[in-house]
Amino acid sequence: MTLLMKAKEAADQVYETIRAKVEELKTQGIKPHMATILVEGDPASAYYAKAKQRIAEKLGVQFTLHDFHAEVTEAEILQLVAELNQDPKVHGIMLELPLPKQISAAKIEQAISPQKDVDGVTPANKLATVTGEAGLYPATPQACIKLLKYYGYSLAGKNVTLVGRGQTVGMPLFHLLQRENATVTVCHSRTPDIASHLSHAEIAFVAVGRAEVVSKQMVHADLVVIDAGINEAEDGKMVGDVATDVADHVQAISPVPGGVGTLTTSILYENLLKAMEIQREEAGKHE
Amino acid sequence: MTLLMKAKEAADQVYETIRAKVEELKTQGIKPHMATILVEGDPASAYYAKAKQRIAEKLGVQFTLHDFHAEVTEAEILQLVAELNQDPKVHGIMLELPLPKQISAAKIEQAISPQKDVDGVTPANKLATVTGEAGLYPATPQACIKLLKYYGYSLAGKNVTLVGRGQTVGMPLFHLLQRENATVTVCHSRTPDIASHLSHAEIAFVAVGRAEVVSKQMVHADLVVIDAGINEAEDGKMVGDVATDVADHVQAISPVPGGVGTLTTSILYENLLKAMEIQREEAGKHE
Repeated sequence: MTLLMKAKEAADQVYETIRAKVEELKTQGIKPHMATILVEGDPASAYYAKAKQRIAEKLGVQFTLHDFHAEVTEAEILQLVAELNQDPKVHGIMLELPLPKQISAAKIEQAISPQKDVDGVTPANKLATVTGEAGLYPATPQACIKLLKYYGYSLAGKNVTLVGRGQTVGMPLFHLLQRENATVTVCHSRTPDIASHLSHAEIAFVAVGRAEVVSKQMVHADLVVIDAGINEAEDGKMVGDVATDVADHVQAISPVPGGVGTLTTSILYENLLKAMEIQREEAGKHE
Repeated sequence: MTLLMKAKEAADQVYETIRAKVEELKTQGIKPHMATILVEGDPASAYYAKAKQRIAEKLGVQFTLHDFHAEVTEAEILQLVAELNQDPKVHGIMLELPLPKQISAAKIEQAISPQKDVDGVTPANKLATVTGEAGLYPATPQACIKLLKYYGYSLAGKNVTLVGRGQTVGMPLFHLLQRENATVTVCHSRTPDIASHLSHAEIAFVAVGRAEVVSKQMVHADLVVIDAGINEAEDGKMVGDVATDVADHVQAISPVPGGVGTLTTSILYENLLKAMEIQREEAGKHE
């Protein structure tokens, strides 16, 4: 029977560690503070921001939602980012995507202080993800690997096929997989025969951002599949990048919802604590 | 019979284009100027710097060799870099490696102006190589692809195995190959069976920096091999990463010497002209 790699337990474990750390910081009079920037207009991103807020409350983390109307200018958001960067009581800055078309996400991301960049979107952290230097790495690629390992799978020396090469998930995941010493094949929209590359794979990560990229005809019974996709199906249900009936034809698969996305949120808060350490180190340097 | 993919003709073609451009710039009173930083102690890098100087003379490019004694401090080199960055008559800055152990190559590289960074070693250009944004990309990975294409091979939709994942050649080459729409498998020292990954490949790039990483037992008659390695054999001869007798067992292979390295030098000068364009555009912005 196929192993369904649900993320709830793994996420709870992360939250438990965070809660303990938050308690410890409390005794020092410090409360972790996450600031989230949301522009109205996309119901899904508003929903995710609210979900993160509920979790922050459970963790004892301060959460400020900076909510802009859809006609906001780039300058207004940049002004807020500059303030959040300067504010020593703000430890993490998260930008909810998508943004309306008058705003360049890249410009906003570049303006965020790398030390507060809890989702690894700044140039400095993107490069650190590539080179393996210290920094804050993007949450979703980290969640993909953590979920796999939680279920006892290792990556060193394994044949991995990664479907998807986007800058948000696929490429940073590729680099994290190098650090794990996997041998990775990267497939994409211009790969003529993705199935042949899955046939050589022991583990597959799928991060394309489109439903049914991988069908049951493309997989084999020994394959372990991590599905990083989140798509809205025609009936309004949330589905991954892998067709739902693939689950019956592989060794193990992560569900959507309840898989990578669930763990990703916990890692954003793990990154928040890591960000605070980096900020403390930096402050120490200038004393 | 195996096709030997010598680089001389391809390099001459690049030099021809550069020479024409240098002539054109001359009529505007502009002479391209490459500054090279060399620290004494490594005979090979001194040899390469001199070779680049001879080529500059043939191209009509001004070449200044900044030659430091082996006991130079980091501060002294950083001081020179700052001056070269500021000097509007210097268009390109090249740092010869290796450096003596008291000098951090990373620190020097970070100090170079991205607009004069003809070998794509600065953080900004490294990130541009990853994302595909405009910038100056490293010369050796570019040379690998250019040499292959010069001999009529295409990369889109092809199965490519890349052996080597170093930050200097392997990783930037991986990203340039994404831009070519190849499906790339990255093998490395922790890959248990590189031969199996070569057996699926139509094209192989080898960039490990160690002789005889690929032997004739690991290849097949249809394989096209680009060897980016430069190693000194026991007898003092220059050899690639691929064993010399592989040449008889593949469809095509690039020689060492006379392959990738030969083309790389020409691309450094191509990047110099590109750097001048970027500098002109930037100057235009501030007028």
